Amino acid sequence: MSPSRVEDGATRGQIIPIGGAEEKLNEPQILRRFVKLCGGRRARIAIIPTASLASDTGSRYESIFSDLGVDWAEALPFETRHDAEGGEALERLGEATGVFLTGGNQLRLSTHLGGTPAAKKIRLMNAAGVHVAGTSAGAAFLSEHMIAHGEEGSSPRVGSVTLAPGLGLTNRIVIDQHFRQRERLGRLLTALAYNPFAIGLGLDEDTAAFIGHDETVEVVGTGAVTVIDPAGLEFSSMDTAHPNDPVCMLGVKLHILVPGATFNLHTREANAGGLAAGKG
Amino acid sequence: MSPSRVEDGATRGQIIPIGGAEEKLNEPQILRRFVKLCGGRRARIAIIPTASLASDTGSRYESIFSDLGVDWAEALPFETRHDAEGGEALERLGEATGVFLTGGNQLRLSTHLGGTPAAKKIRLMNAAGVHVAGTSAGAAFLSEHMIAHGEEGSSPRVGSVTLAPGLGLTNRIVIDQHFRQRERLGRLLTALAYNPFAIGLGLDEDTAAFIGHDETVEVVGTGAVTVIDPAGLEFSSMDTAHPNDPVCMLGVKLHILVPGATFNLHTREANAGGLAAGKG
Repeated sequence: MSPSRVEDGATRGQIIPIGGAEEKLNEPQILRRFVKLCGGRRARIAIIPTASLASDTGSRYESIFSDLGVDWAEALPFETRHDAEGGEALERLGEATGVFLTGGNQLRLSTHLGGTPAAKKIRLMNAAGVHVAGTSAGAAFLSEHMIAHGEEGSSPRVGSVTLAPGLGLTNRIVIDQHFRQRERLGRLLTALAYNPFAIGLGLDEDTAAFIGHDETVEVVGTGAVTVIDPAGLEFSSMDTAHPNDPVCMLGVKLHILVPGATFNLHTREANAGGLAAGKG
Repeated sequence: MSPSRVEDGATRGQIIPIGGAEEKLNEPQILRRFVKLCGGRRARIAIIPTASLASDTGSRYESIFSDLGVDWAEALPFETRHDAEGGEALERLGEATGVFLTGGNQLRLSTHLGGTPAAKKIRLMNAAGVHVAGTSAGAAFLSEHMIAHGEEGSSPRVGSVTLAPGLGLTNRIVIDQHFRQRERLGRLLTALAYNPFAIGLGLDEDTAAFIGHDETVEVVGTGAVTVIDPAGLEFSSMDTAHPNDPVCMLGVKLHILVPGATFNLHTREANAGGLAAGKG
């Protein structure tokens, strides 16, 4: 499930994890930017409500995107693996300029869509320029390594996080959502302690990371994105620690990004951008 | 209230913040090490229960230290500022080889002891070699810059922490306790964002940082000590952010220390010590 190859001449679409509870009515900055990115009025947005057990999640987002001026926003009913293997919904998916995965339970996404033609199609579409956003569970699912569930708490503990394969639009990041609100630093650090090749993105609610084709993370919303970069990790005790032990991690780098600040996943450089320029 | 000067020929006593809820009966590793440090059976431990509103806090620690083999462990009743200005309790304090500040409310410590001869005496005694431990509120109070109170949450927010002057045994650190259990990374980061000269120590429950005269932090207990080193901070938006805004912080270094690992507050070097040596 690694990311699909970008063909010559094509540009990968943005990958947009959202921390959940994004503003939908007044000042919906994140959704508005997503719509603009996908073509504004001419955007064609495929909504995938598979994570949610609520029957109206899809239609609710149809209304929200319609209120934002989108003519074509359609919830695609991938409710079973069979639905995701072929048929009309899959064809409709192929017409989208943007894909939006709702919240719910990320294990519903991975169990219902994992390995299906629908999942493969989303990866191919993203490689060909279609933007893919996911909120809450939808955000967790976007990357190759998905946090399936875990415990709350600031410091890392053996066993405090369960990883599972995700959609795999990128393998550079491990995403966590509701980050500030549900105290998830410990479980995200634990996820990285296993193998510090990836970068952790902890998304507060109503906060999104817009990841461009040049690997630059831009922040939109009212909260922060916590970037955990373990590239300089000097030591991890994950290989010798016992269940429920705290995990020793030395030399982790942390950036707290707010709107205006950026981070590049390739160069691993953080930039205060306009925030710094605004200073005397 | 800066640290008292260590006289020629003297060695500063250890400074020992404890994250609260330290084990008291089975395997009381932290208290046992504190007792050993203070002289074992010949230790003379002054217990300061001022932070606590419970009337039996002092006598409870008298029993605990007595069970650990200490002949002289006495709760000193500094209940008012008047008590801390002179009299028998102050004289008894001067005989101690170790001082132990209990939990409760750190603002009771700072309002009752701040600026009194008792506070001054503890600083002088520490500079002369007496070890000073504090648990929970007692830990918060040890340093020059004390977290008085704050909000829970992983990412820093303007206004999420209130700082106040503490006892001032050291000014190199800002201490937070119940760290993992009460989700305090955000408030500790916020405290450091104001002025990144200090190092943050986030102490899990039943976990202590034994800080030696050479500024080495050793970890004892069942949890972790989260070290936040902002020395390399590239940017903080604290000067321009508005109330309740998330705070942008780029380039913070993080170490999660477990027992066996160390950190030097002077050189700012983390070391896995025995943990690394134990690996093939």
